[in-house]
Amino acid sequence: MSKKIKKVNAAILIIGNEILSGRTQDRNVAFISNWLNSKCGISVLEVRIIPDVEKIIVENIKSLSNKFNYVFTTGGIGPTHDDITAKSIAKAFRVKYEIHQEAYQILEKYYGKKSFNDGRKKMAKLPKHSKLIYNPSSAAPGFVVKNVFSLPGVPSILNSMIENCKKYLKTGLKIHSMTINLFTVESNISNELNKIQKKYLKKVEIGSYPFFRLGKVGVSLVFRSVKKDFLYRVDKEIKRMIEQKKIKIFKI
Amino acid sequence: MSKKIKKVNAAILIIGNEILSGRTQDRNVAFISNWLNSKCGISVLEVRIIPDVEKIIVENIKSLSNKFNYVFTTGGIGPTHDDITAKSIAKAFRVKYEIHQEAYQILEKYYGKKSFNDGRKKMAKLPKHSKLIYNPSSAAPGFVVKNVFSLPGVPSILNSMIENCKKYLKTGLKIHSMTINLFTVESNISNELNKIQKKYLKKVEIGSYPFFRLGKVGVSLVFRSVKKDFLYRVDKEIKRMIEQKKIKIFKI
Repeated sequence: MSKKIKKVNAAILIIGNEILSGRTQDRNVAFISNWLNSKCGISVLEVRIIPDVEKIIVENIKSLSNKFNYVFTTGGIGPTHDDITAKSIAKAFRVKYEIHQEAYQILEKYYGKKSFNDGRKKMAKLPKHSKLIYNPSSAAPGFVVKNVFSLPGVPSILNSMIENCKKYLKTGLKIHSMTINLFTVESNISNELNKIQKKYLKKVEIGSYPFFRLGKVGVSLVFRSVKKDFLYRVDKEIKRMIEQKKIKIFKI
Repeated sequence: MSKKIKKVNAAILIIGNEILSGRTQDRNVAFISNWLNSKCGISVLEVRIIPDVEKIIVENIKSLSNKFNYVFTTGGIGPTHDDITAKSIAKAFRVKYEIHQEAYQILEKYYGKKSFNDGRKKMAKLPKHSKLIYNPSSAAPGFVVKNVFSLPGVPSILNSMIENCKKYLKTGLKIHSMTINLFTVESNISNELNKIQKKYLKKVEIGSYPFFRLGKVGVSLVFRSVKKDFLYRVDKEIKRMIEQKKIKIFKI
């Protein structure tokens, strides 16, 4: 079989001092990555969390947009002084940072002419030729420039917008996954697991993750592949190992 | 005043496909960053999340350990095939990857000679000259090589070990912070806030974070500085603005 597997990848860039300082627990990485995986067949290969500093945002946009098919940024697109994502992305791509007519109209309609102050107008300033990601929660749109998608930092708003990214994305092959949860410790199965992983190298990715639940120690084995038949083969081999070692499966 | 402020910084490197894929919600960034901030006066300036791939770990260890005072890694120090952090760090620093005598003794005692299998022995293989970070939960130690601290990925185990890092750290000046929660929207205060931030540039870092609570929209203003007196001044100016705008403070 010489059929090529089309792999599409992405990076996530979380922009915000509040995440870096530990004040706020990030929830956007897991949400975006799950959505890209399950809905678009896109694998996230790197995440970075950086401060609200123009020079650092510019550097990271340049390097990540070169390295990956897509980059998703979160945070820094609101009306306050620390919201500098749009300006920084314009700088990274050497395009003008200016009023986007459609974004301006959306925001003016939302706030009303009288309340459309400078802070609010700032949210209509985007890198030139941005395409809009509509925001059903609070009007202020996200935007796409080249392969970079910029979304807000507030999880509930981001979640409401994510489907509006899809039309701009080239999607990849769906990645399938299976999970088996075992009542054992990793070090009890590591040798056998290693052998199975070596046999299916580059075809199936096997991950092993310890957990503690209901006072018991367990291991989740997660195997992922674009080919379902390889997953079934790995599943069979792992179940054989489990039987030989007399390990109990834990059903969730 | 020419007294210099001693700033110590760090990066966090999260190693693990399960975090990148969105399967597991990371909790270690917020925990480590809060601990470094509050207990050691160390600011986290960058976080990266990367897959369990040797080449990528090596590259990131090299660049982050050059760029920051300290690097904290999480994940990849267990007994399974996908645990390659120790080996990769040895490669990054061009030191041998070999059995660490004290780690070996700790693990042998914990598992008992009979049950001390190859997977478990692997956890005693560390970069040469590693210093140990003792693990009160499950024996397998973390380790320090040069300015890189390696901890496990399971949050409860990591949390139990973190205090054992302190003796190897040079700590910085404590960063103080104050928070005011307001019943308003960001775009209502962005102009005034911008003026205050400009006045205290490089002295106080002011962050503005929208929240939704009890069905109401609010903004948390967080200001951070190594100098308490500057914080009090910013607090005064913000309270004056709040009064002028007739905004209610939200007490949590």
